[in-house]
Order: sequence, then C-alpha cells, then structure tokens
Amino acid sequence: MEIVGIIMINKFDINAIKKIGIIGGGQLAKMMIVPAQRMGLEVYTLDPDSNANASFSANDHVVGAYSDETALRKLAALVGKGGVITFDLEHVGLDAVKKLEQEGYKIRPNTSSQAIIQDKYLQKEALKKAGIAVADFEKMEIESEIREWFKINKKGVLKSRRFSYDGYGNFVLDDEKDIAEGFKKLSKNTGGLYIEKWVPFNLEISVNVARGLNGEKMCYPLCENEHENNVLYTTIVPARVSEKIADRARELALKTADVFEGAGNLCVEMFLTKSGDILVNEVAPRPHNSGHFSIEACHVSQFENHIRGVAGLPLGDTELRDEMTIMLNILGDRTKSGKVRYEGVEKAMELGFSVHLYGKEETRPGRKMGHMTISGDREKLLKIYENIENVRIKATT
Amino acid sequence: MEIVGIIMINKFDINAIKKIGIIGGGQLAKMMIVPAQRMGLEVYTLDPDSNANASFSANDHVVGAYSDETALRKLAALVGKGGVITFDLEHVGLDAVKKLEQEGYKIRPNTSSQAIIQDKYLQKEALKKAGIAVADFEKMEIESEIREWFKINKKGVLKSRRFSYDGYGNFVLDDEKDIAEGFKKLSKNTGGLYIEKWVPFNLEISVNVARGLNGEKMCYPLCENEHENNVLYTTIVPARVSEKIADRARELALKTADVFEGAGNLCVEMFLTKSGDILVNEVAPRPHNSGHFSIEACHVSQFENHIRGVAGLPLGDTELRDEMTIMLNILGDRTKSGKVRYEGVEKAMELGFSVHLYGKEETRPGRKMGHMTISGDREKLLKIYENIENVRIKATT
Repeated sequence: MEIVGIIMINKFDINAIKKIGIIGGGQLAKMMIVPAQRMGLEVYTLDPDSNANASFSANDHVVGAYSDETALRKLAALVGKGGVITFDLEHVGLDAVKKLEQEGYKIRPNTSSQAIIQDKYLQKEALKKAGIAVADFEKMEIESEIREWFKINKKGVLKSRRFSYDGYGNFVLDDEKDIAEGFKKLSKNTGGLYIEKWVPFNLEISVNVARGLNGEKMCYPLCENEHENNVLYTTIVPARVSEKIADRARELALKTADVFEGAGNLCVEMFLTKSGDILVNEVAPRPHNSGHFSIEACHVSQFENHIRGVAGLPLGDTELRDEMTIMLNILGDRTKSGKVRYEGVEKAMELGFSVHLYGKEETRPGRKMGHMTISGDREKLLKIYENIENVRIKATT
Repeated sequence: MEIVGIIMINKFDINAIKKIGIIGGGQLAKMMIVPAQRMGLEVYTLDPDSNANASFSANDHVVGAYSDETALRKLAALVGKGGVITFDLEHVGLDAVKKLEQEGYKIRPNTSSQAIIQDKYLQKEALKKAGIAVADFEKMEIESEIREWFKINKKGVLKSRRFSYDGYGNFVLDDEKDIAEGFKKLSKNTGGLYIEKWVPFNLEISVNVARGLNGEKMCYPLCENEHENNVLYTTIVPARVSEKIADRARELALKTADVFEGAGNLCVEMFLTKSGDILVNEVAPRPHNSGHFSIEACHVSQFENHIRGVAGLPLGDTELRDEMTIMLNILGDRTKSGKVRYEGVEKAMELGFSVHLYGKEETRPGRKMGHMTISGDREKLLKIYENIENVRIKATT
C-alpha cells in the first residue's frame, strides 16, 4: 500500500478557533461581530478610521490602512494562526495580506479568489469562461477604442476595473458626446477600464449564497433590489417573480459561487432582462447589503453564516421565517451634509420595523446611514410598501 | 385661569438620548448592548471585572465596584444627564446611585423601586399589600423564632433578605435538625433573614413584562421553567398549561409590575401550585434568563424592549414567531472547574439551535456559561425535547 495523498479535514474546533479578524471596520464588520461574539468568538477589526462603526464593538481595533503591512501584522498577531481573517470589503490591496497567507495565517476567502473578484474585468472573464451569462464586455485602454466600440453598440457603461463599488467608477454612455467626459473621469483611476454593453433589464435581483469550509452551499431567497443613484435603496424578499425564474436565479448563483474559491458568504447581483434572461452583473465575496433582511427574517443571518463559513462551523437555515420581508436603506438626504439627525424612528418602530442606525456622526448625500427591516405576511407588507416613502426614516441635518 | 400643574412628556428623541449606561457588565448587559448599538445608541458599562463579558462590546467600560461612587461618577460622566443609566443586576448598593439620581441623572428603573425589590422581604410585603398572592412569609431575627415557626409550619425556606440570587441565600428547612445549619449559614449575610412556607408546586413559571416610559406594558408569552440546584436549566415557551392558566399568569404579572414603579423589563417568577393557585415567588427588575428565548423567537427581544423602555422608545412585538421555543442553559459541569472546553456545539447548530457562549474563560460547577435556543413547530421541538440531554452543549474542562 502506498500513501497517495493526505485528506485534510477542516474540522472546526470551537475550543481552538476563538479569534476572528476583519479587514475593514464598517457596518458589515459590525454586523458580523454580533453573531461571532454571541458564539463565544473574539473579533478584532482593522480600519483607517479609529472611530469606525465596528471599532466600538470589536474586542480590539487596529487603526491603519487596509493594505498597510504593519497594521495587518498587528491584526494577525491578535488573531494568531489558529484564528481566521476575513473581510468586510473587497477593495483592498492584497500584497501584504498575501504575505500573511503564505506565512500560514488563515485568510478566508483566500487572496487568489479576492484578486480576481476585485478586478471587475478579470471577474467578468472568469464568469464568461465558466459559461455564465454576462453582458458583452471588452477591455478599453484608449479613448479611440471606446469610440469604435460605441459606434457598434450604441449604449454602454464605462467602468473602472478596480476599487469601484456602489456605482463609483461607473459612467453610463448614452450618447457619443458622453465619451470624452466618461473617459476623462474614469481614467484617473488606476487599474484600467472596461466597457459593458447596456442591458435593458426589468429587474435587478440578487442571491446571497452561504458557503461552508467543506464546500457546502446554501442560498438565501431571491432579492428584488431597487437602487437610487447606483446605491441600494430597497430590497423585497422573495422577489416578485415566478418560482421558475427564482429557481433559475438560485441555480445561476450557485454556479457563480463555484467560480470563486473560498468559504464565507458571496452575493451574486443579476439582471433579469426584458427578454427574460438572467445575466450576472457582479459578485461580492462577503455579506451584502441586499442580504441585511436575513438578520430578522431568517433563523441564521448572512452575517452569522459568513462567520460560520469562514470558521468552519456548520451552516444554518437560510429560509424566510415569514412570507415576506422588506429592507429599506436609510441614505443621507441628497441635499444635506453635516451632523446627522433622524426623523421617523418612532413611527417605523410602531409599524414593526427593526431599526439599524450605524452610528455615523455625519450624514452626506446618499451615504449609507442605516437600514430598517420588516418581516411578516405578504399582504400586510405590500400594503405598507404602497406608502413606503412616508415610512422610511430620514437621515438629515 | 391658573396653572395647576405642568405635564411632563417623556417624548423620546433618538437625536438627543444617544447614550446608555449599564451598572453591571455580565451577559445580560452584553445582550442589551447588541440591540442598543443596532439602534444607534452608545453603551457604557460598569463592572468590577475589567474582562467582564459586556466590556468588549461596550463603547467604553468603567472598572469599579457597582456601588463605588467614583466609578459610578465615571459612568455618569460618560452617559451624561441626557442619557439613561440602567442595571444588569439588582443587587447593588444604592447610596451612590441615589446621589446621582438626585443630581438629575436618569436612573431607570429608579432607586426607590430598586430598593424595595432588592430586599426580598420588603418586596414580598409590597406584593402582599397590593393583594398579590404569595407564599406565607415572616421576618426572622433569631434562631428561636425559626424554631417556633417551624413547629407550626413543618417545612419552609429560610432566605437572606438581600444580595441573594440563583438560590444563593436560600436554605430549605425539611427537618428541625436543618435549622441550626441554615441559620448559621445565612446569618453571615447582612440584611437579615426571613422565612417562607414551603409551596408544593407543580410547575415553576414566569412572565417577562416589557414596560415603556409612558406606562405601556406588554407581556411575553408564559415560560415554563425547570431549575437545577436553584439555577434555571430549561425554559419552554409557551408553558404547557391551559390557556386559562396562561391568561391568569399574565394578568398576575401585569398586576405585579404595577407594584414596582419604573420603565424597562421586569420578570415575575411564579409557582403554579398543586391546588391550581398561582403564587408570585419573586420579581427581577430587568431582562431575565427565562426571557432569553425572545432573542430568536420574537420580533423584539426582551433586551431590545428593555432598552426601548428605559430610553422612552415605543415597545415592540412580544409574541412568539413560531409555535414553540426551547431555551437551554449551558451550565458548568458539576464536577469540573478550570479553563472551559465546549462539547456538542456543531451538533446543536446542525439541529437548528442558536448558540450563545458568554466567552467566560473559566468554568465552575453550575456557572452560567451560555445558552442555546431553538424555535419552530411544536411537534418537532417536543421530539427534540425527548432527548434533550444528548443535545445540550457541555461546558467542561
């Protein structure tokens, strides 16, 4: 007999892994800390902001740039090689993180997966290669290439390949005249550009996928998402589409998740096109704003499953507990900047909303200041939805 | 026209009250911090232990004795007169807290209410005076009084009036021979003794009552509680009694809550006697171990409602979301002391339990190390309950 390989069992030992590190200290990190600490884990965060939302709840907080080796080494020292380091954002320079990974610190999802996802062009290429439907796209290096492309395609979105989120780094080209402005604006960003053909869509949808260390995968129900200026504004779950479409979207999300190695949650944002196709728009390798509903609406939230996934614990139930749930983002008033003041908190609570305010001192136009979730009977919720703008908490000055 | 009085409206302003102080930094404080921070509030804790469970999640933590004026003034300075100070335990010397209250800091529930509750004899007297059924009780000062009482009553529980919880400070007198030992043991405690006639009961039950600043009151469903060595071991909700008994218990709990002024949650522990009467055993003016189920099983937990209550926010839904819920305490192995190691965490998660480990480094016999909750269909849960000891997570060394 010959030993042909060693089977590594990533069996979780809650008595050994007790420490989680998070690169990034925003509201996503904050919402991961809650279930992690509940399960008896210690959580350490790293963020350039010493007053980052998560810093107050973390067991300890390291102040430093996401890609700063000294700061990352401080985080790694707190977490140790027995613990796990994860992310609350994917737009992080990975050189120093990769060093830690090579030294034996557990980075989940791993840096090779992160490197592909954080370059949207490479991400799209990986998806296309795996046979996943995406909008037509092409790398763009100089303005004349864009002009050539535009002549044929008529409408498109020029995008920065890297460090873009919530619509930052996107520029819609409706007319030939937009090209100069778009190119000028985006070519300031490092990492290059690419262009995507405009997709006439009926609905923006997403599936949040929980992934275990053993390869186990579970989908949360399909989200129907409405954006305002490229920032998520409202999520309705389950999306108001046929069962057949919902099943197709979930299948596509699972197939997409397989493209990117690693444990922990992953959100797949998709377009349901006017012709009934589903195209993958982009992937976020972490808990996602469209999955916030799961805190109240599911037995195990996306944040708990992310922590369970990266720590190697068994995943938990992702089904809705009620017929429907609605999540409203609380975005900074479009015309106000300054010390924040909230309006409508009591009214929202009286209606049965769970209120999340992220504790940010200052509001800015469109800034994510909090969110609110309600879960219950479909009929009751759709009734509330009819007058939703009267219900939404306002973040003003 | 003459002004005959000024109506004070305790209208909550989430933009004004942003700070909560908690005297005590244990797991109850920790579980209050989660919804408070979610609602955008800052939370400050005070505890003699610099590593108290809540200290890691609090915005800041003051180390000092619960009754130490210097430490309390530090806490008060962090919270300010615009904020609210509450408690995670009631056995606190109140002199310094009372000073702060007189200076205008908001202490909720207030010290006069706390003073009555923390002396179990005064508490019982207040209940009796309000016409609430309690076991026969009598103040005891010297051993010979106890002997006289025992001749007539045959069985009783000798109790310390103050600083007693989870059965500490209780001594069951089954036989005349027990009196000397009981008196010797308990008379070491300051604050005096009293005795209660033994109540032959069928069931220990409790109702957690949420109380708003405006006098609003809401009951959580009736709990059926099983104790092990005077420490809560298992809670089943709703209690397996008739609707009629459940209604009577909730009515009694509301009547009991009216005896003790103040906002925030209050737990009323009761006996369902063999003759079908309901007697109030004792009152805790805070979230209570028997109400932990509400974190997962209700839209608004006892911890969130406690914070809402003391902060003057509207109370939220206290109904069960599923047919039934079971909460199991994870108590330190009766024969082990030392660095804790948990067994059965994954199995519990796979069955659908939410796992709470309080992060205490050391286990001791019967110590509250965590709890676990499952919520769902009655039939499924009762099936799990048949083999519950195989499911319960073990805290050992």
